[in-house]
Amino acid sequence: MIEAPAGKIDVDRFRARHEAMAAIGATGRGGIDRQALTEAEIEARALVIGWARLRGYALSVDPIGNLFIRRPGRGGGFAPVLAGSHLDSQPNGGNFDGVYGVLAALEVLEALDDGGIETDRPIEVVVWTNEEGARFQPTTMGSAVYVGALPLQQALAVRGRDGVTVSEALACMLRKLPHCADRALATPLHAYVEAHIEQGPILESARRKIGVVLGIQGLRQYAVTVEGTEAHAGTTPRLRRRDAFVAARRIAAEFDRVATDAKDIARLTIGRFDVSPGTTNTIPGKVTMTVDVRHPDEHELERLDRAIREICRERAQPCSASIETLLTSRTVNFATSVVDAVREEAARLGHGALDIMSGATHDAAFLARLCPTGMIFVPCRDGVSHNEAEYTSLENMVAGVEVLAGVVQRLSRREAGVGA
Amino acid sequence: MIEAPAGKIDVDRFRARHEAMAAIGATGRGGIDRQALTEAEIEARALVIGWARLRGYALSVDPIGNLFIRRPGRGGGFAPVLAGSHLDSQPNGGNFDGVYGVLAALEVLEALDDGGIETDRPIEVVVWTNEEGARFQPTTMGSAVYVGALPLQQALAVRGRDGVTVSEALACMLRKLPHCADRALATPLHAYVEAHIEQGPILESARRKIGVVLGIQGLRQYAVTVEGTEAHAGTTPRLRRRDAFVAARRIAAEFDRVATDAKDIARLTIGRFDVSPGTTNTIPGKVTMTVDVRHPDEHELERLDRAIREICRERAQPCSASIETLLTSRTVNFATSVVDAVREEAARLGHGALDIMSGATHDAAFLARLCPTGMIFVPCRDGVSHNEAEYTSLENMVAGVEVLAGVVQRLSRREAGVGA
Repeated sequence: MIEAPAGKIDVDRFRARHEAMAAIGATGRGGIDRQALTEAEIEARALVIGWARLRGYALSVDPIGNLFIRRPGRGGGFAPVLAGSHLDSQPNGGNFDGVYGVLAALEVLEALDDGGIETDRPIEVVVWTNEEGARFQPTTMGSAVYVGALPLQQALAVRGRDGVTVSEALACMLRKLPHCADRALATPLHAYVEAHIEQGPILESARRKIGVVLGIQGLRQYAVTVEGTEAHAGTTPRLRRRDAFVAARRIAAEFDRVATDAKDIARLTIGRFDVSPGTTNTIPGKVTMTVDVRHPDEHELERLDRAIREICRERAQPCSASIETLLTSRTVNFATSVVDAVREEAARLGHGALDIMSGATHDAAFLARLCPTGMIFVPCRDGVSHNEAEYTSLENMVAGVEVLAGVVQRLSRREAGVGA
Repeated sequence: MIEAPAGKIDVDRFRARHEAMAAIGATGRGGIDRQALTEAEIEARALVIGWARLRGYALSVDPIGNLFIRRPGRGGGFAPVLAGSHLDSQPNGGNFDGVYGVLAALEVLEALDDGGIETDRPIEVVVWTNEEGARFQPTTMGSAVYVGALPLQQALAVRGRDGVTVSEALACMLRKLPHCADRALATPLHAYVEAHIEQGPILESARRKIGVVLGIQGLRQYAVTVEGTEAHAGTTPRLRRRDAFVAARRIAAEFDRVATDAKDIARLTIGRFDVSPGTTNTIPGKVTMTVDVRHPDEHELERLDRAIREICRERAQPCSASIETLLTSRTVNFATSVVDAVREEAARLGHGALDIMSGATHDAAFLARLCPTGMIFVPCRDGVSHNEAEYTSLENMVAGVEVLAGVVQRLSRREAGVGA
């Protein structure tokens, strides 16, 4: 039992719940397959709902299936402080991504109860629907719909890999779960805080327990197609070739060159690289590659965008290259009030902290459009995530819960000049 | 009608036969699909057999289905001079690859008849079985079995993409074709000459009608596997990555560097390049690529082999690379007697000629193990082959027939000190 101004955190309870969740959708190889709105995710939600009902917390579900668990405040109709994450996983997911943030938020509610602490504002736990985007595209669907960035009807109509629509999967879930009240989309929030594993190696390398997340870096994704001429590998001299592979690998090297910075901030990844026709003795006539570029500074992303387009225009000879933008996601900067609260709570608790930009996107990226938002990162081993080998220690998780409890309690003060 | 010492070549007859063959297996897009021992290839053989029977030539088939059409010599049990090629095609094949060499050889026999010319030695036309290797692996199967490089039983047991074995497909062909006598494998030959389109751009560029083929360049094929570590594209800094794509593209650039020569002789092709897991936002953990290396000089191939292995050992950091040899095919140098005959006949006929190494392999590569062998190339448009757009002019084809007729007649002299 950890006693702190934010309540009594019960480490054994937290660990037991984390272990119970790890059994739901377990693959037998150390990880889980608990994709959105499947039997496994519904079972995970049922477990969380069961714990919430034991405490008498009010439950509500919005039209896209986001689940809210409310611990009331002293009254007065103040907007709640929201904390949480998601319970769905990648097909070969780990036991920490998402589920940690939900269990951390639930632990905060119960720690407040057990510490006999009242708050001015209500505090809510949220389970966002379909953060991973593995079964249903796009990723962070539930939070996008909640804040109005994705039309509800469009999301409901999405058909998963298995042929089932989001609408059908939601109806199935609602039949199986205990009754919850209806919650309107975009119900005002005072603030949102999400605890999450870093999913990268920076905190571990720096030997810090807490990442003070400043925001989420911007992202551009492109498809680049290089066209040359198929020809016989044995009969065509080098100087007569229009080898799409050679042109594409030169272009890829140029992409890396313009994204290489001394401080190692920019991130450029070529993840797909499809060579056609793909036979040993034919000079490739076509290559299609994806380029994923990330940077915390929008101006740098714009510079990289221009450089990448120029490379496609100027450096493909004797082939030609075309570029298509697949995705543009601007940098999100979290509210100073929440970021400062995270930094100060970490310092007060004596946990070594580091300011960090999130490399991956999260539901917090959409919540930042609706209310002051922040995130708390904890390290994960070797930076591995979206992988059954994903791991972080109980000690790290508990440090994050402590910071979250402190931050939520601060933000729940009526006078806290943060949001609605 | 072209009158030459080698007989009366009938251009109209040759053209009509070429057009008749182009109809068999026609795809409707300008090319043919006439894979080995299919209905279409059997029909093509039946047509050739019909033309041969009108002349009364003797027909024989060996145990792998190679078809021989014999115009007798003056007698005396001399080994025959053999000329020909194949009638099978790639799935999207053109109207010139293989079929040209068969029709050219048949035209030579009839031109000798029409010119009233007797030869000391018999002259034979051959249709090799399964040169392309598209339906049944390996390529140049019929000639490999004929010379003893591939055991007959092993070839007969090969199962095609459609589940049918070579043995079954051969039995089907023999039922449908008119009766032919049995021919023993490795029956001695005095010489072998094959006319073929170049399948490359060199003759066309040099504005020459005849390629004096010196031999077939050596070939090495490798599979190179580069292993790194999969990681999240958004959260993993560049300096922390073990990006298999980046390592593989650097290795590929090094391969190209060591194979780049001032005279543009060496040919290196990376035709397959498979990136795993192949998703936009995951840093690749593995790349497998094929490397196809060709050179007329075996010593150069050995130098390139060493250089490629050294690159895999030394240049993959921070990833690792391994290399596997898929295929080794040594350079074939054709017999001086046949090469000289081709060069001299081209000169005598006034056709501009160029010494050339074959970039692709042919049945002639195996025949060279059994008897003095040579090839005659004619240009093809833009060097395109194994493609429905494959094309060469009637004029080019006839020039090749004229040279072939002259070479065959020379070699057919009893005193010609060439082979058996």
